[in-house]
Amino acid sequence: MSKFTYERLDKAKAMLLVVDQQEGLYQLVHDMDPVNTKNNILAHATLAKVFNLPTVLTTSAETGPNGPLPAEIIALHPNAPLIKRNGEVDAWDNDDFRAAVEATGRKQVILAGITTDVCTAFLALSLRDAGYSVWANSDGSGTFDKKTAADANDRMRAAGVQVVSMFAVALELMRDWRDNPGTTQLMPFFDTYLPEYGMLARAHDAAVRTGTLSGL
Amino acid sequence: MSKFTYERLDKAKAMLLVVDQQEGLYQLVHDMDPVNTKNNILAHATLAKVFNLPTVLTTSAETGPNGPLPAEIIALHPNAPLIKRNGEVDAWDNDDFRAAVEATGRKQVILAGITTDVCTAFLALSLRDAGYSVWANSDGSGTFDKKTAADANDRMRAAGVQVVSMFAVALELMRDWRDNPGTTQLMPFFDTYLPEYGMLARAHDAAVRTGTLSGL
Amino acid sequence: MSKFTYERLDKAKAMLLVVDQQEGLYQLVHDMDPVNTKNNILAHATLAKVFNLPTVLTTSAETGPNGPLPAEIIALHPNAPLIKRNGEVDAWDNDDFRAAVEATGRKQVILAGITTDVCTAFLALSLRDAGYSVWANSDGSGTFDKKTAADANDRMRAAGVQVVSMFAVALELMRDWRDNPGTTQLMPFFDTYLPEYGMLARAHDAAVRTGTLSGL
Amino acid sequence: MSKFTYERLDKAKAMLLVVDQQEGLYQLVHDMDPVNTKNNILAHATLAKVFNLPTVLTTSAETGPNGPLPAEIIALHPNAPLIKRNGEVDAWDNDDFRAAVEATGRKQVILAGITTDVCTAFLALSLRDAGYSVWANSDGSGTFDKKTAADANDRMRAAGVQVVSMFAVALELMRDWRDNPGTTQLMPFFDTYLPEYGMLARAHDAAVRTGTLSGL
Amino acid sequence: MSKFTYERLDKAKAMLLVVDQQEGLYQLVHDMDPVNTKNNILAHATLAKVFNLPTVLTTSAETGPNGPLPAEIIALHPNAPLIKRNGEVDAWDNDDFRAAVEATGRKQVILAGITTDVCTAFLALSLRDAGYSVWANSDGSGTFDKKTAADANDRMRAAGVQVVSMFAVALELMRDWRDNPGTTQLMPFFDTYLPEYGMLARAHDAAVRTGTLSGL
Amino acid sequence: MSKFTYERLDKAKAMLLVVDQQEGLYQLVHDMDPVNTKNNILAHATLAKVFNLPTVLTTSAETGPNGPLPAEIIALHPNAPLIKRNGEVDAWDNDDFRAAVEATGRKQVILAGITTDVCTAFLALSLRDAGYSVWANSDGSGTFDKKTAADANDRMRAAGVQVVSMFAVALELMRDWRDNPGTTQLMPFFDTYLPEYGMLARAHDAAVRTGTLSGL
Amino acid sequence: MSKFTYERLDKAKAMLLVVDQQEGLYQLVHDMDPVNTKNNILAHATLAKVFNLPTVLTTSAETGPNGPLPAEIIALHPNAPLIKRNGEVDAWDNDDFRAAVEATGRKQVILAGITTDVCTAFLALSLRDAGYSVWANSDGSGTFDKKTAADANDRMRAAGVQVVSMFAVALELMRDWRDNPGTTQLMPFFDTYLPEYGMLARAHDAAVRTGTLSGL
Amino acid sequence: MSKFTYERLDKAKAMLLVVDQQEGLYQLVHDMDPVNTKNNILAHATLAKVFNLPTVLTTSAETGPNGPLPAEIIALHPNAPLIKRNGEVDAWDNDDFRAAVEATGRKQVILAGITTDVCTAFLALSLRDAGYSVWANSDGSGTFDKKTAADANDRMRAAGVQVVSMFAVALELMRDWRDNPGTTQLMPFFDTYLPEYGMLARAHDAAVRTGTLSGL
Repeated sequence: MSKFTYERLDKAKAMLLVVDQQEGLYQLVHDMDPVNTKNNILAHATLAKVFNLPTVLTTSAETGPNGPLPAEIIALHPNAPLIKRNGEVDAWDNDDFRAAVEATGRKQVILAGITTDVCTAFLALSLRDAGYSVWANSDGSGTFDKKTAADANDRMRAAGVQVVSMFAVALELMRDWRDNPGTTQLMPFFDTYLPEYGMLARAHDAAVRTGTLSGL
Repeated sequence: MSKFTYERLDKAKAMLLVVDQQEGLYQLVHDMDPVNTKNNILAHATLAKVFNLPTVLTTSAETGPNGPLPAEIIALHPNAPLIKRNGEVDAWDNDDFRAAVEATGRKQVILAGITTDVCTAFLALSLRDAGYSVWANSDGSGTFDKKTAADANDRMRAAGVQVVSMFAVALELMRDWRDNPGTTQLMPFFDTYLPEYGMLARAHDAAVRTGTLSGL
Repeated sequence: MSKFTYERLDKAKAMLLVVDQQEGLYQLVHDMDPVNTKNNILAHATLAKVFNLPTVLTTSAETGPNGPLPAEIIALHPNAPLIKRNGEVDAWDNDDFRAAVEATGRKQVILAGITTDVCTAFLALSLRDAGYSVWANSDGSGTFDKKTAADANDRMRAAGVQVVSMFAVALELMRDWRDNPGTTQLMPFFDTYLPEYGMLARAHDAAVRTGTLSGL
Repeated sequence: MSKFTYERLDKAKAMLLVVDQQEGLYQLVHDMDPVNTKNNILAHATLAKVFNLPTVLTTSAETGPNGPLPAEIIALHPNAPLIKRNGEVDAWDNDDFRAAVEATGRKQVILAGITTDVCTAFLALSLRDAGYSVWANSDGSGTFDKKTAADANDRMRAAGVQVVSMFAVALELMRDWRDNPGTTQLMPFFDTYLPEYGMLARAHDAAVRTGTLSGL
Repeated sequence: MSKFTYERLDKAKAMLLVVDQQEGLYQLVHDMDPVNTKNNILAHATLAKVFNLPTVLTTSAETGPNGPLPAEIIALHPNAPLIKRNGEVDAWDNDDFRAAVEATGRKQVILAGITTDVCTAFLALSLRDAGYSVWANSDGSGTFDKKTAADANDRMRAAGVQVVSMFAVALELMRDWRDNPGTTQLMPFFDTYLPEYGMLARAHDAAVRTGTLSGL
Repeated sequence: MSKFTYERLDKAKAMLLVVDQQEGLYQLVHDMDPVNTKNNILAHATLAKVFNLPTVLTTSAETGPNGPLPAEIIALHPNAPLIKRNGEVDAWDNDDFRAAVEATGRKQVILAGITTDVCTAFLALSLRDAGYSVWANSDGSGTFDKKTAADANDRMRAAGVQVVSMFAVALELMRDWRDNPGTTQLMPFFDTYLPEYGMLARAHDAAVRTGTLSGL
Repeated sequence: MSKFTYERLDKAKAMLLVVDQQEGLYQLVHDMDPVNTKNNILAHATLAKVFNLPTVLTTSAETGPNGPLPAEIIALHPNAPLIKRNGEVDAWDNDDFRAAVEATGRKQVILAGITTDVCTAFLALSLRDAGYSVWANSDGSGTFDKKTAADANDRMRAAGVQVVSMFAVALELMRDWRDNPGTTQLMPFFDTYLPEYGMLARAHDAAVRTGTLSGL
Repeated sequence: MSKFTYERLDKAKAMLLVVDQQEGLYQLVHDMDPVNTKNNILAHATLAKVFNLPTVLTTSAETGPNGPLPAEIIALHPNAPLIKRNGEVDAWDNDDFRAAVEATGRKQVILAGITTDVCTAFLALSLRDAGYSVWANSDGSGTFDKKTAADANDRMRAAGVQVVSMFAVALELMRDWRDNPGTTQLMPFFDTYLPEYGMLARAHDAAVRTGTLSGL
C-alpha cells in the first residue's frame, strides 16, 4: 500500500467558520430532522468556544428570506467577525470574509453551513484551492435531501477535504482527555449536544454514587 | 357511517404522567434517535408546566441499571409525587402510584414512558381498564425499534387509547391561541422543543422587523 | 363476515375544505418532500374545481409565522368563503367556519390540511362528531414526520374517517370516465398533478399518432 | 370512551407454542436480519423455561426443505411434546397437536412461528376461534418482508390477538421484579437475548464496583 | 377476549378476480419494484389455475394508456370471462362483470389489481357491501407509493376484507400438503413465483441426492 | 494535503445537454418519485434559459417505446439542435450530436439524462475522454433504483465528472445574486422548481408587507 | 480537470464469469430481495448468450451447503467450462479456472457472484492484479446486507474495477441498436429480465397497433 | 486501466486489534442494532483465535462511563496485552500500545472499534501513517448513525485502508477451505456468528442424513 500522511487537527493551528446557518435557510434542510439540525449547528459554533478557536461568522442576504443567524450563535461569538454578504454565494469571493480568515493566521479550517452543496462545498473547494487544509463537520451542514448531501461530501472529498463528524472534530482537537479542555469542558459540551454520551455519564455517575448491583 | 363522539383534552380535567423516562433506560431507545429522545422526554414533562396540570412521576428500580430520572425533569416538578417503584413493572400495580393518580381527581390522563411496549402500554391498558380516558404522547415514549413501537401503539389503540403527537397534545389542551397559556407560554415552549416552528417564528419576526423583499 | 355498507363519495353531496395549507406551515412538513407537498396541496384545491364542489378555505393566524395560503389556491376559488381564524386551532370551533360549511348543505366532506395531526385531525374528528361523513385526502395533508402522519390517520380511522389518496378521491367522485367531468377534465388534471399518469397518456398518444413497433 | 378490560398474561394460566421455526424455513425470513432472527427464536423458546410454562413444539414436513428445529430448542424442551406434522399447514388441523395443547389445561397461549402470515397467523386465528386468549410474540415470528409481517399482524389483531414484543411477554408474565423468576432468572435471560439491557446492567455493575466519576 | 370466528378460504367456494393489472397501469406502481410486480401479478393469475378456481378478468379502457393485460395472463385463462370496461372505475358498476361474478356461484372472492387504492379497493368494498367474503392478495396489487398502499389496505380491513399475502392465499386454499393440489402442483408454482422457497427445495434435493456433510 | 484547483462553472464557457429525458423512459425511473422526476427534468432544461446557455437536445429512438421529449422542453428550446438518434446508445457516437456540441465552442458541459447509468454516464465518460469538463446534474438524471444511480455517479466521479445538485449548478453559474440573472430571474425559477425556497420567499415577503409579530 | 481515457466494453474482447451463484449461497443474499436476486443471476448468465461471449462457470464446494448452480444457468452454457473448486475461496487461486479464463484470450472480464464481498471481490481484485480490465455487474452479485455490498463495491472501485448495472453492461456491449444483437435479441432479453422496459415496449406496441387517443 | 497490486491478508503476517469495544460505549452505537453489535464485536475478537493471530486489546478510560470490555473478550485473550489508556483518544498516541503492536512484528493490522469515526478511524490513519497495511472490519465497528459510519469509512479508504466485512476478513485469511483452520474451525465460528451460513449448513447436513425429496 502506498504512503499516507495523517494531518491531524491542532487546536493551535485551527480556526472555525460558521457559514450561512441562518434561520430561514434552516427550513430547507431535509437530510436531517429539525431537532438534530438545530442541535448540530449550535454544537458546531460551540466547539470553537470549547477549544478557543478563532472564529468567523458569515451570512448571505440576511434581511431576505434566508434570515439572520440564530441569536444563540451570535451570543456565543460576540467578538468574532460577522461578514454579511449581500450577493456572493461563495464566501471566498467576498473580500472582507477572505481578509477575516487570513487575519487569523490559521491554515486548518473547520467549517459547516447550510446548504451543504452550495454554502459549505463552494467555500471548502475555494479554501482547498487557496492551500488550506479543510475539515467539513458533516453533522453541522444540512441540505435538501440525503443524496445531495452525499454528492456534496463526495465532491469535497475528491478535493482533499476531510468530511468528519462533530465527535471526530472534537476529539481530534482534544487528543487527550487529561489536557485542557478535556473532561472539564468537553463532557458538559457532550452532555448538551451528544446526549447519548451525556446520559451515559449521568447514569454512570449515579451508579458510582448510589447504585446497587443489578443482580446479573 | 356510525356515530362518533369526540372527547377532547380539557386542561381542567387532565393530568400528566412521567413514566420511567430514566437515564439508563434512555439507552434502550432505538426507534428514535438520541437527540430527539431527550428533546421529547423534556418536552413531555414541560407540557404539564405550560398547562399547569397535576403531574405524577414514577421510576422503576432507579438505583439499578435503569438509573434516575434526568435532573431537568425533577427540577421542573419539585412538588409532584415521585413514586419510586422497587419491583412492579406496571405502575398501576403500585398502591402509592395509584393513590397519587386518584388524588388528582382528574380522569383524562396524558402519559409517556420508556419503553413504549412495557412501561407506557401496561399502564395505559390498566388506566383504560380502570375507566380513565388516556392520551399516549407517542413522541415522548421510546422503545427498542420501530416495529415494537408500532405494535405497542396498535395495542393501546385497540384499548381505546388516543395515540397522539406532542404537538396534538399541546394544541388539544390549548384550543385557542388567545387563551391562557396561548402565545405567551406556548411559543417559547415550541421554540425550544419544536425548533422548526420556533425558527419559523424567529425568521418571521425578523422579517417583520427588518426584512426586505426577496425580489420574487 | 359481518355486514358492511359502502358509502361512496357523490359529487352532488360532497364539499371540499382547504385547511391551513399556509406558506409558513408548509415548511413544517417532513413526512413528504417539498415538491410533492406543493403538488399535492394544489391538487387538493383543484379537485373542487374539476368536480365543481362547494369549497371553504380557512387559515390560522395568517399574519403570523403560519403565513398566507398560496396565491394559486386563492385564485382557484375567488368566490369561496375564506375564514381567517385568529385563535381557534380546531376550525370547527369558529362560528363563521361552521356556518360556511353548513351553508353548503352537503354532508360528505373532503378535507386536507397542515398539519395532519392537528389541523386535519381535530377538524375531521369534530365533523364526525357533528354527523358528517368525512374523507381525508392523505396526500394533501403534511406533518412533522411519517410516524405522526400514521398516528393521526389511525386516530381519524378509529373515528370512521375514510383516509384515502388523492387518486381515490378523484375516481370515487367521477365513477365513470364517460361522465362529466371525465376524460375531458380529469386527464389534464392528472397530467399536471399525477405526472406518471400524464406521461403514460402522452407517450401512448404519441405511439398512436406516430409510433413504430419496438421489434419486441 | 367505551369500557375496556385488560386481560394480563398469568404464568399460572399460560402456555407457549414453538411453531415451525425450522432451519430451512429460517432462510425465508427477510423482515428481520438473520442474527436477530436466530436470537429471537431462541429467546422465544427460552421464555417458557424462565417461567416454567407448559410448551408444545411442532414442525411441518421436517425431512423436506423446511428442515428440523434448531438443536438448541429441542435441548431446552426435552420433555415437551414435539408434534411433527406431515401435511397440515394450520397446526390446529392436526389432532395430536390439538390434544397436546388441550392437555396443558391452559387458556392463554403465547406463540411465534415461521412464517408469520401462515404458520403463526393460521394457528392464532384457529386458537381464537376455539376460545383461547392469544399473545403473538412478534419478535419471534419472521416472514418474507415487512409488509407481509405487518399485514399478518393486522389480521391477527382484528381477531383479538395481542401482538406484542418479547420484552412485553416477559414482563407481563413476571409483573414484579421481586417475584420468582425475577431478577435472578430474567436478568441473565436479557443479558443473552436483549443485549442492550444486559450491557446496561454490566456497565452499571462495573460502575458500582469500581467506577470513578466522569467529571460531568 | 371476545368471540371470533375464523372463516377460511375453501377451494370449493372460492373464485379469483384479475382486476386491471394492465401493461400501462403497471408503470404506475412504485410501492413494489418492477420485477416483483410482474412476478406477483403472474402469480396471482396462476393461483386460480393451481386450485382450479373460477376466474373473471377485467380491464379498464384498455385501448387507451392503461393498455392490455399481459399476454401471459390471457393465455392462462383462455375460457375465463374478460370484461373490458369502457368507463366504470369500480368494476362492480359494470353489469357484465357483476353477472360474470354471480355466475360462478362462489361467495369467497380473492382479488388483486392496479391500483390498490382504486381498482382493488373500490371493488373490494362493493363486494363486501354485496355480502361477499373478500381476500385481497396484497402482493398482487400495486399503487403509487407505500403510504397509499397501506391506507388502501387499512380501508379494506375496516370493511372486513382479509388483506393477505400470496403465500397465505395459497396455503389457506390448500390446507394440507398431502391433498390435491399439494406438493405436485404447488411446489413448482413456488419454485417459479416464490424463488426463495424454490431454491430451498432445490438445494435440499441436491443434498439428499449427492450432498456431503459440511463438517459443522 | 495535496494541491487542488477548483474549476468553477462559468456561464460564458458552459453549455447544457438534455439527454433522452423522454416520456417513455420517464417510467423507468424508480430512484426518484415521479413528481420530482418531472420537476427536475423541466428544471434542468430551464436552467439553460435562465443563464442563456447554448443547449443541445437529443433523443434515442423516439418513435419507439422511449417516446418523445416532453413538449415543455421542446417549447423552451425552439432553436436548439434536437438530434434524434436512431441507434447509438452513447450520444457521442452520433456525428450530428458531436458536431452540435462542438459548434457551441464551449468546453464546460452540464448534462442530465434518463437513465443515469447509460444515457448520462456513457456520454459523460466520452466527454471526459474528449477533454471536456463535465458537470452531471444529479437531480435531473433518473434510473432504475438508488443503487444504480449511486454506482453510476461513482463511475462518473472516478472519471473526473462533477456530480452536483441542480441548486449547485444554478448557484455556481450565478456566483453573485446582484449579477444578471440574479434575483430577477433565479428567484422565480426557484419558486417553480425548488418550492421550499419559493415558499420561504413568499412567506418572508408576506411578513415584510403585512406581518405581525409572533409573540415569541 | 485531468486526462481520462474511457475504455469501453467490446463484445469482441470481452468474456463473462459466473461465480458461485449457487442455490445454497443464494439464501445468504439480503441486500436484494429473493425475486430480484434470481432474476439478476439468470440475466447475468444470459447476457453472455445474447452477445455470444466466452463464458466460464465456477462453483465453490458444491456438494456442501453452498449447493449447485441453478439448472437454468447450466442449461444456458452447456459447453462452457464449469470449474468446481473444492477449497479455493478466490477462484483465481485455482489453476483450472485461471487456465479456462486465459484460454479465452479475452482481456475484458464481466463478472458477478455470491457473495459480493468475497467471491466477486477477491476474484475481481486478482484479475486487476493480473492485468485484466474488469466490469462487475453489481445487479448480479448479492451479499449479506447493503453496507457490505457498498463496501465491497468501493473496494473494487479503488482497484480500478468498473462497478456497473446489468443495463449498462448490456448497452455498453451493444453500442448501437441497429447492430447485431440489437433489437432482435436484446428487446426479448429486457422483456424477461428488465420487465419495466418490456412492459413499456408491450404497451407501446399495443398502442401502435390498436390504440385510441387518451383524450389528453 | 492502470496497474493494481492486490495485497492479501496473510495469517502469518497479520495481527488483530480490539479497540474500545467497551460496555458503555456499546450504547452509543446506532448504525447497527444492539444484537448485531454484540454479535459482531465478539466475532471480531474470536477471529484472532480462529487464525491464531497476535492480538492487542485496548480501552479508553474504562472506570468511567465508557465501561470495561465485555468479559467474553477478555476471556478469549487471557494472554494478550490489554492497554488501558487513561487519556489518549488515538491509541497510537499511547506508548505502551504502540510498543505492544510493534512487539508482534506484524505489518498487516485488522482492527475494529467503537466509535468508528474516532476510535477506529484515528488509529487506522495513524497506522497507515506509520507504514502499516490496514484492514478495518466494518462489521465490528459501530457509531452514532449510518452517515457517520459511511463518512468515517470513506476517510479511511482515502488513506488506503481496506474497509471489509467480517466474512471477507475471515476468508481472505483462510484462502482455502482445505487448509488449517478451514472447515474444522471456521464452520463452527460461522455457525455462531454468521447464523445464516450456520443454518444453511445445519439444514444441508440434516438433508444429507435423513432428508426426503421435496417433490419439486
